[in-house]
Formats: sequence, structure tokens, C-alpha cells
Amino acid sequence: MTGWPSGFVSLVGAGPGDPGLLTLAAAARLRDAEVVLHDALVPDAIVGLAPRALRVPVGKRAGRPSASQESINRLLVSLARRGRRVVRLKGGDPFVLGRGGEEGLALAAAGIPHEVIPGISSALAAPALSGIPVTHRGTASAFVVVSGHAEPAWRPVLASLAPGAATVVVLMGFASRGSIARALLGRGWNGATPVAVCVAAGTPDTRTRRGNLRGLAAEDGPEDDGLPATLVVGEVVALAERLAPSAFPEDRAEPVERSAHVRGR
Amino acid sequence: MTGWPSGFVSLVGAGPGDPGLLTLAAAARLRDAEVVLHDALVPDAIVGLAPRALRVPVGKRAGRPSASQESINRLLVSLARRGRRVVRLKGGDPFVLGRGGEEGLALAAAGIPHEVIPGISSALAAPALSGIPVTHRGTASAFVVVSGHAEPAWRPVLASLAPGAATVVVLMGFASRGSIARALLGRGWNGATPVAVCVAAGTPDTRTRRGNLRGLAAEDGPEDDGLPATLVVGEVVALAERLAPSAFPEDRAEPVERSAHVRGR
Repeated sequence: MTGWPSGFVSLVGAGPGDPGLLTLAAAARLRDAEVVLHDALVPDAIVGLAPRALRVPVGKRAGRPSASQESINRLLVSLARRGRRVVRLKGGDPFVLGRGGEEGLALAAAGIPHEVIPGISSALAAPALSGIPVTHRGTASAFVVVSGHAEPAWRPVLASLAPGAATVVVLMGFASRGSIARALLGRGWNGATPVAVCVAAGTPDTRTRRGNLRGLAAEDGPEDDGLPATLVVGEVVALAERLAPSAFPEDRAEPVERSAHVRGR
Repeated sequence: MTGWPSGFVSLVGAGPGDPGLLTLAAAARLRDAEVVLHDALVPDAIVGLAPRALRVPVGKRAGRPSASQESINRLLVSLARRGRRVVRLKGGDPFVLGRGGEEGLALAAAGIPHEVIPGISSALAAPALSGIPVTHRGTASAFVVVSGHAEPAWRPVLASLAPGAATVVVLMGFASRGSIARALLGRGWNGATPVAVCVAAGTPDTRTRRGNLRGLAAEDGPEDDGLPATLVVGEVVALAERLAPSAFPEDRAEPVERSAHVRGR
């Protein structure tokens, strides 16, 4: 690609999983990449958009050994120094709980030219694809996104935010869903507040379960099947009853097929 | 397009402005649309991706008359009932302060089949394109997005959130930047907290100004040139000094040209 020098790293957001939700810029970078370092959760249908590239899975996945962040940083620098055109392909958006900033800093410190191509974050796409707008006039004009992975990350936010002041979206929060719901109830949220658990949004395995905060507070244990889950808490969740797409054209049911179609045009 | 029935409405997010940040699915919908109703702020380079469509600007722009939301809803329903393949093209993401939920409800109430295609929200892209990750390990594991358009929307969030607990992103907040900064200082935020004002992210007019919360609190008056602005408050803003892309390939400087290139491949 003209304009993409050798010895360059593109930090690319792959979006939530549906290849159709990749950006045009991301697809172009993949097409011309010589090496792609990709998270384990990025589907083959997206990694396969880099037909000429050496493809290296490096990403973290719960419970499996994976390359350390430091070794990923070193690999990026080393490949760029050898003149490679490198794509670092990350699920969702590189800067939303994706450690893209750490990789960018490592590249900057090594003097490697690089760029960031934003991706569709699951924090927004998982609710949207389940018929839940994170904002809605008269219902919510703000939303907060927290990592549910570690309590010190989410507790200061959820223990202070005024009940109902914003839609709450929790990424990586499946295992801690009970604690998170109890923290919100403790802060004064109404137990009847609707909640949704969106699993594997943007992939063929997608499914969404709805309930309320009181019910979620009674859940515990991981019960995690390794698929990414997004929690959504707030009155906007109730809109899914009317907004959840009941009448999709058939290609929406087969995202990979559709995207192959999109690519082929 | 096979799979896109007539009499169907696709609510499509156009992203922040750079055509390269459009999704593959959005580009495919535009290519086959018969009618495109688009916000005024969506650039011609994106609207032009629907060469066969009747293109109707309907969006709101500060200080100018525009179609009411009710008349947009009626138009969408009426066009679909006449069997048209309609794209409703909205800046950013349809469900992030974009009133996509209202349009979806109107379509659902009228029994019109429809879908939502998420777009890259300026809430994330404006910081990212300025070298600011909204989250960064050890600095911020959460972010909040509020509308700065009306005080009742942002005050309950910003008056309650614990100082420094999350990166704060304000959309449509240029005119109220002084009030917002003073509200955060009143809540106990440190006046030295870095802030950024990202103007027209993802377009050739983009520019970002950085400072601190104390300085922002002293600003007032609209001084608005009609371009969309995104405020970012939090320690992550300081990372831009090292992360702001200093070495872009030349095509990043000409997003429209690049995207034409992307499309042509």
C-alpha cells in the first residue's frame, strides 16, 4: 500500500467479532500486512482478511497461557526494526481496556512509527446488537464503562455514581456480576432496575439474557464458558423489548457469510 | 444486495468523519441504498458512498433550522412503506446520544423491519485520534461519557462520581466546558488534572488543545465555530505527549484520499 512505510506498526481494533463491523481502514491494513499479531478472541474470519501475512496469535484468553505484554511489546518493536509492516489486531477498540496504550508507549519509546485505528468497542456494540441503546432521550444521557476484572477498578466508580445517573456497562464482568449488582444495590439503585448480560456479541454464538438488578445480585460463581460477556444496567435495557431487531434480513443471521459478501463486492 | 429486502430501514453509524472509519457493513448498505437520510455533519465523502441513492440531509446542526425528529421518523416510515431500501446515516454511533433509539421505536411501532449498524463513536475516536486512550492500565480502568448539551444530563453524573475514578468524556460540551470544569473542581478533582478539547476529530479540520482542569474552569462563552468538540478529563490525557502519533504515513494526513484508495481496492 502506498503510504504505509515498511517498519511500521498499525494498532488496529477488530470490533466485536462480526467481520462486517471492521472498519474500511482496518480491512485495508490487514490486506497489506506482512505480519499480524492477533488476540486469541479475534475470529478466523477477520484474521483471514490478511491473506499474505504471517499470523501470530498472542492474545490473552482466560485460563490459558499466553504471551506476556512485555514479550508482545518486544516482538512488535523487533518486527518493525526488521522492516515489517505489522498489524497488531485487538478485539474491540485498542484503547478500551485493550492495553493499546501500553503497546503505543513501547513503540514510541523505541522510536517506531505507528498509528491507532479505532474499532467498534463491545462496550457499545454488545448492547446495541441486543437492541439496547446506551443513551436514550428522557431515559439516559450518560453511560459509564468499567472493567469488571478487578474490584479496585470498578468499585470507586460504582460506589460513588448516583443511582440511575448513567447507564452502567461492565466489560469482563461475568464472574463478578453478583458483587457488582450488590454494590449498586448498596449505593441505592432500585432492585427492579433492568439488567442484561450480553454474551459473545457480534459472533454467531451471541445470546442475551435480561433480568433485574435484584436477580443479578443473587447470582454468583463464574459459570463462565470462556466467551466474552458484557453487563448492562439501567432503564435503557427495557427498550430492548421493543427495539430488539425482530425482523432482520436473512444475512444478519449469518454475519460471516454476509461479510464475505461485503468483501467480495 | 441479496438479503436486504425492500421496505427496510438500516440505522447506520457513520463514525467520526473519516471515511476510513466507516464499517464494511455500513459501506455495503450505502452502496445499495435507494434513499439516504443523513445528518448535516456527515461529510460528503461518506454520503457519496451511496451513488445510486436519493440523498436527503435532515440532521440537526446548531443554529440552523432542521427537520424535527418527528418528521424524520414519519419520513422513514413512509419511505419504507413505499418499498424503499433506506439508510438513516448518523454521525458517530446511532445509540450514543444520536437518537437512534427514538427512530428504532418509531419503526418498530409502525411494524417496519429495520436494523442497527453500530459506528465508531466520537466519544472514543476523538480521544484516540489525539493519542489519548480512555483507559490505561494503572491510570484509568473506567470512563464515563456524558452529554454536555444540557446541565440536567451531566450534573448528576459529574457531581457524584468520585474524583479521578474514571476518565470523563463530554460530547457536545464545548459551550458548557467552563461550567463542567467548575463542577468537577467543586466535587474535589485536582485542578492540575489534564484536559483535552478535541475538535472535529476524524476530519481534515481536526485539532486538539490540551491544558488542565483549572484552566478550563476559567473559560466561558461559546466561542463555537460549529464544529463538534469532545472534552476529555483525566490523567490519561497526559499520555498524549508520548502517544500522539508523531510519525504517520502520509495517507493519514489525507483521510478522504486514503479512503478513496481503500474503496478502490
